[in-house]
Amino acid sequence: MTISDIAKIRVEHDLIGNRDVPATAYYGIHTLRAVENFPITGQTLRESADLIASLAAIKQAAAQANASLGLLDRARADAIIAACVEIRDGALHDQFVVDLIQGGAGTSTNMNANEVIANRALEIMGYGRGDYQHLHPNEHVNLSQSTNDVYPTALKLAAWIGVHRLVDAMAILRRAFEAKAIEFADVLKMGRTQLQDAVPMTLGQEFGTYALMLAEDETRLSEAVSLIREINLGATAIGTGITAHPQYAALVRERLSDIVGVDLVTSPDLVEATQDCGSFVQLSGVLKRVAVKLSKTCNDLRLLSSGPRAGLNEINLPARQAGSSIMPGKVNPVIPEVVNQVAFEVIGNDVTITMAAEAGQLQLNAFEPVIFYCLYRSLSHLTNACLTLEANCIQGITANRDRLRQTVEQSIGIVTALNPYIGYRNATEVALEAHHSGRGVYEIILERGLMQKEHLDAVLRPETLTRPSEKLSFS
Amino acid sequence: MTISDIAKIRVEHDLIGNRDVPATAYYGIHTLRAVENFPITGQTLRESADLIASLAAIKQAAAQANASLGLLDRARADAIIAACVEIRDGALHDQFVVDLIQGGAGTSTNMNANEVIANRALEIMGYGRGDYQHLHPNEHVNLSQSTNDVYPTALKLAAWIGVHRLVDAMAILRRAFEAKAIEFADVLKMGRTQLQDAVPMTLGQEFGTYALMLAEDETRLSEAVSLIREINLGATAIGTGITAHPQYAALVRERLSDIVGVDLVTSPDLVEATQDCGSFVQLSGVLKRVAVKLSKTCNDLRLLSSGPRAGLNEINLPARQAGSSIMPGKVNPVIPEVVNQVAFEVIGNDVTITMAAEAGQLQLNAFEPVIFYCLYRSLSHLTNACLTLEANCIQGITANRDRLRQTVEQSIGIVTALNPYIGYRNATEVALEAHHSGRGVYEIILERGLMQKEHLDAVLRPETLTRPSEKLSFS
Amino acid sequence: MTISDIAKIRVEHDLIGNRDVPATAYYGIHTLRAVENFPITGQTLRESADLIASLAAIKQAAAQANASLGLLDRARADAIIAACVEIRDGALHDQFVVDLIQGGAGTSTNMNANEVIANRALEIMGYGRGDYQHLHPNEHVNLSQSTNDVYPTALKLAAWIGVHRLVDAMAILRRAFEAKAIEFADVLKMGRTQLQDAVPMTLGQEFGTYALMLAEDETRLSEAVSLIREINLGATAIGTGITAHPQYAALVRERLSDIVGVDLVTSPDLVEATQDCGSFVQLSGVLKRVAVKLSKTCNDLRLLSSGPRAGLNEINLPARQAGSSIMPGKVNPVIPEVVNQVAFEVIGNDVTITMAAEAGQLQLNAFEPVIFYCLYRSLSHLTNACLTLEANCIQGITANRDRLRQTVEQSIGIVTALNPYIGYRNATEVALEAHHSGRGVYEIILERGLMQKEHLDAVLRPETLTRPSEKLSFS
Amino acid sequence: MTISDIAKIRVEHDLIGNRDVPATAYYGIHTLRAVENFPITGQTLRESADLIASLAAIKQAAAQANASLGLLDRARADAIIAACVEIRDGALHDQFVVDLIQGGAGTSTNMNANEVIANRALEIMGYGRGDYQHLHPNEHVNLSQSTNDVYPTALKLAAWIGVHRLVDAMAILRRAFEAKAIEFADVLKMGRTQLQDAVPMTLGQEFGTYALMLAEDETRLSEAVSLIREINLGATAIGTGITAHPQYAALVRERLSDIVGVDLVTSPDLVEATQDCGSFVQLSGVLKRVAVKLSKTCNDLRLLSSGPRAGLNEINLPARQAGSSIMPGKVNPVIPEVVNQVAFEVIGNDVTITMAAEAGQLQLNAFEPVIFYCLYRSLSHLTNACLTLEANCIQGITANRDRLRQTVEQSIGIVTALNPYIGYRNATEVALEAHHSGRGVYEIILERGLMQKEHLDAVLRPETLTRPSEKLSFS
Repeated sequence: MTISDIAKIRVEHDLIGNRDVPATAYYGIHTLRAVENFPITGQTLRESADLIASLAAIKQAAAQANASLGLLDRARADAIIAACVEIRDGALHDQFVVDLIQGGAGTSTNMNANEVIANRALEIMGYGRGDYQHLHPNEHVNLSQSTNDVYPTALKLAAWIGVHRLVDAMAILRRAFEAKAIEFADVLKMGRTQLQDAVPMTLGQEFGTYALMLAEDETRLSEAVSLIREINLGATAIGTGITAHPQYAALVRERLSDIVGVDLVTSPDLVEATQDCGSFVQLSGVLKRVAVKLSKTCNDLRLLSSGPRAGLNEINLPARQAGSSIMPGKVNPVIPEVVNQVAFEVIGNDVTITMAAEAGQLQLNAFEPVIFYCLYRSLSHLTNACLTLEANCIQGITANRDRLRQTVEQSIGIVTALNPYIGYRNATEVALEAHHSGRGVYEIILERGLMQKEHLDAVLRPETLTRPSEKLSFS
Repeated sequence: MTISDIAKIRVEHDLIGNRDVPATAYYGIHTLRAVENFPITGQTLRESADLIASLAAIKQAAAQANASLGLLDRARADAIIAACVEIRDGALHDQFVVDLIQGGAGTSTNMNANEVIANRALEIMGYGRGDYQHLHPNEHVNLSQSTNDVYPTALKLAAWIGVHRLVDAMAILRRAFEAKAIEFADVLKMGRTQLQDAVPMTLGQEFGTYALMLAEDETRLSEAVSLIREINLGATAIGTGITAHPQYAALVRERLSDIVGVDLVTSPDLVEATQDCGSFVQLSGVLKRVAVKLSKTCNDLRLLSSGPRAGLNEINLPARQAGSSIMPGKVNPVIPEVVNQVAFEVIGNDVTITMAAEAGQLQLNAFEPVIFYCLYRSLSHLTNACLTLEANCIQGITANRDRLRQTVEQSIGIVTALNPYIGYRNATEVALEAHHSGRGVYEIILERGLMQKEHLDAVLRPETLTRPSEKLSFS
Repeated sequence: MTISDIAKIRVEHDLIGNRDVPATAYYGIHTLRAVENFPITGQTLRESADLIASLAAIKQAAAQANASLGLLDRARADAIIAACVEIRDGALHDQFVVDLIQGGAGTSTNMNANEVIANRALEIMGYGRGDYQHLHPNEHVNLSQSTNDVYPTALKLAAWIGVHRLVDAMAILRRAFEAKAIEFADVLKMGRTQLQDAVPMTLGQEFGTYALMLAEDETRLSEAVSLIREINLGATAIGTGITAHPQYAALVRERLSDIVGVDLVTSPDLVEATQDCGSFVQLSGVLKRVAVKLSKTCNDLRLLSSGPRAGLNEINLPARQAGSSIMPGKVNPVIPEVVNQVAFEVIGNDVTITMAAEAGQLQLNAFEPVIFYCLYRSLSHLTNACLTLEANCIQGITANRDRLRQTVEQSIGIVTALNPYIGYRNATEVALEAHHSGRGVYEIILERGLMQKEHLDAVLRPETLTRPSEKLSFS
Repeated sequence: MTISDIAKIRVEHDLIGNRDVPATAYYGIHTLRAVENFPITGQTLRESADLIASLAAIKQAAAQANASLGLLDRARADAIIAACVEIRDGALHDQFVVDLIQGGAGTSTNMNANEVIANRALEIMGYGRGDYQHLHPNEHVNLSQSTNDVYPTALKLAAWIGVHRLVDAMAILRRAFEAKAIEFADVLKMGRTQLQDAVPMTLGQEFGTYALMLAEDETRLSEAVSLIREINLGATAIGTGITAHPQYAALVRERLSDIVGVDLVTSPDLVEATQDCGSFVQLSGVLKRVAVKLSKTCNDLRLLSSGPRAGLNEINLPARQAGSSIMPGKVNPVIPEVVNQVAFEVIGNDVTITMAAEAGQLQLNAFEPVIFYCLYRSLSHLTNACLTLEANCIQGITANRDRLRQTVEQSIGIVTALNPYIGYRNATEVALEAHHSGRGVYEIILERGLMQKEHLDAVLRPETLTRPSEKLSFS
């Protein structure tokens, strides 16, 4: 855009009055007013390409459905469809200039899309931008629609894309944990409960748990995302379908499913669907669950790698950067730390989403923009966190096998395995003596004549210690 | 208990030393120490009968499994089982005296159960309380078990009961909304978006939405509760099953399923299951979703019944109590208000549960007591809230039909229905004139000659306004 | 109360109709209806003696002010005052039977107080309970008042008491930490950042920090509580003071200040004061801050005492109870664990309070009951947590001095102290060699000839390592 | 930067190995690694100019202090200072490329600053970028410092700036409310409690409340910001001041106070100060309080302007944009709606900050980056929200005076004013008759002969209704 272009303006009109719009702009007066009204975050719609593509897909599907029903002539429909295809291919995203956090329940987002598509379609038809008598943002691009069905549907499509991206990232991370579980399958170590030495296990079991937690959450996300497939196109203003043709809802759903390749479902009750943010709350709740487990896992990784000398020092995270501007040679668990922070953010976002959902009134929730803002950040930050955790941390983890074996040999906790042979009360006596004397359980048992050496050795074999086993009979 | 009874004590012993226990007490030294250590809320285990019954069911199932496996002799098994049955029938709940919020990851809860059951079983066997050489809380009642598999399993069983109670209450409430939806099916009113007059709908549609929201949440709860069926008995200390017989897990699951009448599943990975609180986080997330929707519904009810003269005054909530100590005749929406507050509490509880789940370390989450404390309050308060909302509010709601019809007749919003006939721009002009002049849309349309009277009447029929409809052709 | 008493009833009347009230009850019809309307938590007003005493103090002060202004005759005033004094002394608390979570913005709490005081005052005057023509709950006990000024004022007085109790408990806990800071002043240990070995410090410095955090929070609480001193008596229904005598607000404030011994302030704008919950939000925010620090402290204590053999094992928490039902001899950090859980609860309560405060509409916040419910639990549970932490944990902590000294001697982190002498880059080389070889920094420095032994020894003296110091000059 | 420039690289070295750095880059290897490690939000340090300027101010103050103490030669000090001044003037912000959410407790932020300043200073001294033997990022720019004192100090300075910007915006908004309070001082309306008609007040009183809430929060922010003035420069790694000159802390504080024009205070205990995030938690708690009140105010504005015909319709918000893509003429409260959403975001951010603060371990909180990320967004979004609310909404609000007067005249609530004359019980009877018959209180009172007309008129004068007043005597 050159300076002489900027000087050129066109005048547009709305119910408030006239406004100059830059002649080069594809957006129009409604978008312009929204930009002025919502100078909040500086983060605009263009930062979510998924949302823009989803809006274009909806407008395309609506034009197809309207044309099929004879509500929109072929020429206008074709021009709208062509414009939408371009936008879905990445064009004109810089024309989506409204702040992501906006008042108006998404109307400005919908109008931004209507205006950009209308003006691009006008160009395609050979008219000038702003010549809305030939093709009008509201009367043609928005035909049979309302912000209140378009916007939540677009949010859901964008969330659908985001969830799948996250699930893919989680699967990558999970596989890294699975590989480590195999690699460490024979590394005996002390398990801990309440940070106190408990009983032996393998490091492979420990890492297998991290993998399984992710696997379960992948399943939970798949369940939650199925709720997201339910859309309310055809609802128009409040769900009663006012101004919409009786066959429109089914037709637009069909077209849109084809376009985005998702098997969408029209909500059985559009009045309910138009006001309900339950599926976003549910999805955010599951993201919170993912965050909780990722954070717990990273807490563990930081703990297990603490040291190198005054810590647990059981595993080594790969060094990724110098850890300190003052302490030479210090290396920190920077990757788990960044994942922890993303988890905290996701949990905070869930509170925001919850409050926004609760604040909906009567036939609409006006606060969906902040719901999407938070949901989308949760999805993308979690995705990024999983990927950096896999690539920059998990892959390179090594075990300090000697030290781990040592902690088992020196442990008091192995006495638990002897409960079936010497009883809880005897075992307690042995444990206390070991603790106070600093000596080993093994020698105390023998010294006290509680078991014979060969029996003791049999019970304390790793395969006995780390899985259920029948009481050995020493007869 | 008389004063002379209290004077009588027995001495018990643990790794810390000796302690006097009241001779009449069924609990023992471990319980006593826990009472002293955790004087936090004043709310003890006995306040959750479901938890106590669940613990007894587990101990009963364990005794059965242990007896089958030949690990426990018949006499002791029978005595333990008999004691458990009594407790499940409501006996001895007053002996469960540990604070619900406790350190130790539930150990004190488990030990309280072990001690009460052991002492009652000793009595049944003809021994005195405290004669643990005949039957020991740890060695016999707790045989093949650890707090770390007993406690989370008990929490899940108790939550399972609580969820079903809640779902029942929600269904009762839902049916009341459904009845109102039918009663008000023909009451035309203005729908509102963003608190501004939108387009017409029926009051029946509005109440039908409240019913449907509950119905959906009943489904979501049923999904979440299925995660709760997964237990980790057989895991013992950290999930490796140390000291447990290889067939114990399957046997105890089977016995317990029979006892409680729930088709329980043993987690496929007990190490993961022992440390993971994901199912509680998930369940709490769904309870939060229920809370959000109930709160939104109650916000609406309070708004629709606002007035009686300076408010919306669309519906009347039944008067339940005098509303003011100073304003004569004032009646307030006290029932929805109390439901709102429960919803806020549930949302706060979810944050607590989330933090507690995140704080788990390595092989165990030591903070399950506060998770249960919050989860159980969320469940029971929500249940109570649904029941009082149904009985004391929804059933008695009446509609101000005249006023509702009037608001539609006077509304500007009906102009939306004319979009297909006069276009968005003409409709905007009419709306603005109506707004500024205070006149009706109907007369302005006619005055401007935009539509003929009979056509206008046809378009503005209620059945056209409140559902999708083909464009009428007036040829 | 005997069975024949229960059979005896009196009939009371309100705007809804007549109701039987037990003849022995001091509460009346308004209370009875509230009990039926709000069967939510089972926790009634009587569980907060502070709230009941505060209500009685307000009613007493109001009676005094009303009598001074000639609005209430001496006989009735005296009887009301006498009844209030009794209640403040602990009488009749069992008559406060409404659920703490209640709709109606506290009206039922106020009416419960009005009714109990009226009936007791009637007795004192020689009349029967329910003979309200002689002394009426609303017309006399509630004279010049509204729930909307009485209830928030009572909440503030009760919170004021609760905060002071908490500050006292915090001071007790702080002094225990201070004592440990002195006891451990000479115990050298490795400081850690990001769980990685950093540079030396003393255990005394570590414990001094815990003391100081408490000290700072005591100050913050004192600031927050000063906001709580601002009351709105005289506001009546919405703050305009309707029906209140112009001198009433000043008079009642004066009387109430005398009674409760707090220098209360009347809000300069009673309309604002009546609807604003800002001071509760602020106070809860500070309680959350206290919770965050207590939780961090307990996390540290659990970490530092981890082991005994496979953990950090730097300090020993006193054994308070057997740690496991299966692992003999295990002792867990049960006291810090219970404090963590209280902290999580307080943080969740803050979210509930925040939502409830945000939900206030127009001239009143109807959700103050749940605000108080959460605030009071936060206050009392934190108080209890501080006391058990002090008595059952901090006092008995001991240090493993040998192990701590060892970790410093073996550490790589002491190389930081050499930065000024050998430079960050040389120091990094030394650190890396130490890390990879497992050898000590000390010997590597000497081996590389980077410093002379006597210089090195001088720099590595404890007093140099644990405080700022000028670069030593070795010329 | 041209393509041939990019091709030119320089090689830098750290403890992990060598890396190519673009020759044109002012940042170095540490920054580069951080960019690769933390691809989380896409929002980099450069988005917070306040943070960059604060870092430069600290580095400048440190160079001055180091030079004074003879620890840094004049030439290097001057070059560092000159580079810092340029950055504070806005130069080189594009070189601050690390993601705002980062692991490493801010080390990467500090190193990014060290590297950019070092390379710019090298240029100023006539050397090439990367020639660190002449001036080293760690040894000279970071001299006497650690990330652990620089980073939190920078966060505090940036927050200090942000808070003052917010307070200014709040004052602008407050004055707009004050102007409206004066404009509407004589507009009588019905006050409402629990959304039910209560007693009369003026619209001026209502708007005055909104002003006062802001005024109080300005005060609270000023208190919280004073905690932010306390810095820990001189603490170095963990607060013990290792490697720092004993006079450094005082000197650098003095210099920095001069540079930024804030009277900074050095924390009395640097070990505590280095690990404690309490001041951020406190500040965020106050921001949450601001958010709660702003949200409540905007809820009210949306409610009072609901309609235009089926709502309360008491005030008119200025039309800012077309409200609907389908409903012609609809205008929505878009500005309050966007403010509500910012409030929800701030409340969610507070949860994130709380969790991050709680997660600090031992001598450091590694999660300060996300604390700052959330705090800074809360500050800037709230500032923007206040400004758009003032400019685009409050200024243009008008009152529907006729309608408001009407609601008072028709109200039942005025009967409260008659309590002192006819008693609560009579007044209740009148209110009930008015409610059931739909008639006015005024006429019923006269009809029942409860008061004489002239007395009634005297009591119902606006000035009597909206403030405390002595009981009129009609003798």
